[in-house]
Amino acid sequence: NGADIVASKNCASCHGANGIAVAPIYPNLAGQQAMYVEAALKAYRDNARGGQFGAIMTANAVGLTDDEIKQIAAYYSELK
Amino acid sequence: NGADIVASKNCASCHGANGIAVAPIYPNLAGQQAMYVEAALKAYRDNARGGQFGAIMTANAVGLTDDEIKQIAAYYSELK
Repeated sequence: NGADIVASKNCASCHGANGIAVAPIYPNLAGQQAMYVEAALKAYRDNARGGQFGAIMTANAVGLTDDEIKQIAAYYSELK
Repeated sequence: NGADIVASKNCASCHGANGIAVAPIYPNLAGQQAMYVEAALKAYRDNARGGQFGAIMTANAVGLTDDEIKQIAAYYSELK
């Protein structure tokens, strides 16, 4: 499920164990819109998002299936 | 200040009057990390972020000064 994928990808190292970013340059994801997170991860996966952390996120998103992306997005949207 | 710029740019039409997105495809911005919002707006301004809504956000961010971007980011980070 989403929690397992998030753990395996170590998303918490930037986005925090509770979805509140560990540093102000990373986005909080707790309670974020699932559909938005899904679209953003797909954009990173497609290497369509540059910017300061585009490369790091693309490296993390490449290889994720659509279903895994959906589960990650649902996981974060449900964090309060 | 940030509230005036956000009003003039009509950010609420997608991101909501209280920073909670009007539709699930747009990100919530209320309480988001200011430094992240600043970096994301600059990436859009630089046309470095593609993806589904890259073009819309680039059109909105082009022309914003660094100071205006900083004020928008601060405004949203302070919304609870």
